[in-house]
Amino acid sequence: MGSDVVIDGLQYNNWDRALFEKTRDGGVHVVHVTVSYWEDFRETLLKITQWHRHFVNHADLIMPVKTAADVLEAQRSNRLGIVFGFQNCSPINDDLGLVQVLHELGARFMQLSYNNQSLLATGCYEDDDPGITRFGKQVIQEMNRVGMVIDMSHSAERSTLHAIELSSRPIAITHANPAFFHPALRNKSNTVIDALAESGGMLGLSLYPFHLKNGSACTLQSFCEMIEQTVERIGIDQLGIGSDLCQNWGYDTLEWMRSGRWTFVADHGEGSAADQRWPDQPEWFQSTSDLPNIKAGLAQRGFSEVDINKIMGNNWLRFFEASFGPPATADGV
Amino acid sequence: MGSDVVIDGLQYNNWDRALFEKTRDGGVHVVHVTVSYWEDFRETLLKITQWHRHFVNHADLIMPVKTAADVLEAQRSNRLGIVFGFQNCSPINDDLGLVQVLHELGARFMQLSYNNQSLLATGCYEDDDPGITRFGKQVIQEMNRVGMVIDMSHSAERSTLHAIELSSRPIAITHANPAFFHPALRNKSNTVIDALAESGGMLGLSLYPFHLKNGSACTLQSFCEMIEQTVERIGIDQLGIGSDLCQNWGYDTLEWMRSGRWTFVADHGEGSAADQRWPDQPEWFQSTSDLPNIKAGLAQRGFSEVDINKIMGNNWLRFFEASFGPPATADGV
Repeated sequence: MGSDVVIDGLQYNNWDRALFEKTRDGGVHVVHVTVSYWEDFRETLLKITQWHRHFVNHADLIMPVKTAADVLEAQRSNRLGIVFGFQNCSPINDDLGLVQVLHELGARFMQLSYNNQSLLATGCYEDDDPGITRFGKQVIQEMNRVGMVIDMSHSAERSTLHAIELSSRPIAITHANPAFFHPALRNKSNTVIDALAESGGMLGLSLYPFHLKNGSACTLQSFCEMIEQTVERIGIDQLGIGSDLCQNWGYDTLEWMRSGRWTFVADHGEGSAADQRWPDQPEWFQSTSDLPNIKAGLAQRGFSEVDINKIMGNNWLRFFEASFGPPATADGV
Repeated sequence: MGSDVVIDGLQYNNWDRALFEKTRDGGVHVVHVTVSYWEDFRETLLKITQWHRHFVNHADLIMPVKTAADVLEAQRSNRLGIVFGFQNCSPINDDLGLVQVLHELGARFMQLSYNNQSLLATGCYEDDDPGITRFGKQVIQEMNRVGMVIDMSHSAERSTLHAIELSSRPIAITHANPAFFHPALRNKSNTVIDALAESGGMLGLSLYPFHLKNGSACTLQSFCEMIEQTVERIGIDQLGIGSDLCQNWGYDTLEWMRSGRWTFVADHGEGSAADQRWPDQPEWFQSTSDLPNIKAGLAQRGFSEVDINKIMGNNWLRFFEASFGPPATADGV
């Protein structure tokens, strides 16, 4: 095991004991899990207390991760570490004070918007993007203060660049790929990747079929080629995996993710009315137990073991260390 | 009394029996009252049930108004009629289904945004305005269907024009003045007034000092001159009063209106840090009991009694009749 850690920068699962076991036994030390999409503060508390029951009922198998030290403790005790995050800002309602409340309850990542316009920022499916709002500027400052990572995975371009500019600390795009690999609205332009690189931010590469070249038929070689090209842009230290695995859900959950409560007519997002099911994972990445396939693919392209381990989790660990608490120095605020 | 009605297109008061009496006895038949600013759905229900108590406790003096017929019943029974409205979309949370719920509970006006970016539209104090959002388009359709009036008083320009364009029914700007009179961010450009005119919308002229030329020192003559010029742009049938009177409140309420829960640092809105109090009303318009001053001012400028009565309330009545329910014809949807 050594000191190398394996961290998945995003999963959204219907967790049960079998999945905790499978994920841990597949070699993953820590997963950033999505607690909420459209859930407001009160509904988010229901999700968090559900996690509290999981931590009691499966104390032998999982543990909460609120610091980088917790990652190492999860690894040491052979338990799967769980980092809480939100894919939208719904959990803070309209209340700046809830940023600290949710940080104290363990939240370490929050997306400023999810596909649509939020109170803070614009989502990637809106027609136009005015950048970060007045409320958004306040929230970024507060997230910087307490140590909650700004995640712009589902945000639109101008808002993402604006967030990078306004944030005094590096931000993350936990789960997306470069648009040069596959030009989905959810993937990121070179402009965004360059701004992320320059600001010390992290990019978690996604294995969600709609973010992959040729979708479910994407080859391992093509994915590893993309990693190689992305390293050329962002360097070897700011890249990780954010698999975007969605496991154990029915189609109703995908409908919830896409349509929330904001439309009576189903929004098909990256899918279509003709294809009302979860997309199939590529055969070489059915779950995180297949991470060794990616490691092998990278080795074959000449990546060193040190560099592969950076991508598999060491970069996320270093980022957690710098991000999951108040800034190290007073002038960092 | 005859068939002329006096309607105030917007007030936000800390109502009590004395104020109900004063307003009725001052000759007003109906007021559109603000129920919520930043209050979410649950908090809005608290405000609505408070109104239910008012309707029980002061049944001799006030009554709810949900239709144009209710306006006439209020006039006939010598009671002040109350129309519910919201100055923001907070009451529907993120839930399209709550539009009909709140319409059934009596809400007849809803602003799509209040100063800031909302989930639906942009507020007048944001730096940039992308227009109506994906969720906003759904809400406009639903408000059109049930008969809840879209109010863009505190919205930014592009969103306002976009709402006029997207709405299949005329919208309202319940309380604002033309920017040619006083160039506040809250007042409306000729472009907006012309689009409102063309689409059959209503403009309620405001008596709030920050919307007046020379503020609290604005003269009656100057205000009536502005009405005359506005009639030249929008015609005599689409203009009313939306006094924006805010009565019986402490300064804490003004802070709530401006800063909600979205900032820790006080936002001074139209005021300033140096002037932390409610602005003084012009001496000729302390309350709606002074509406006769405006009538006299208009008569002096040569307005006919018929035209004065249109502005005092008959235009609002006709607008309520067309707006407070499902569209008259199927193709109106």
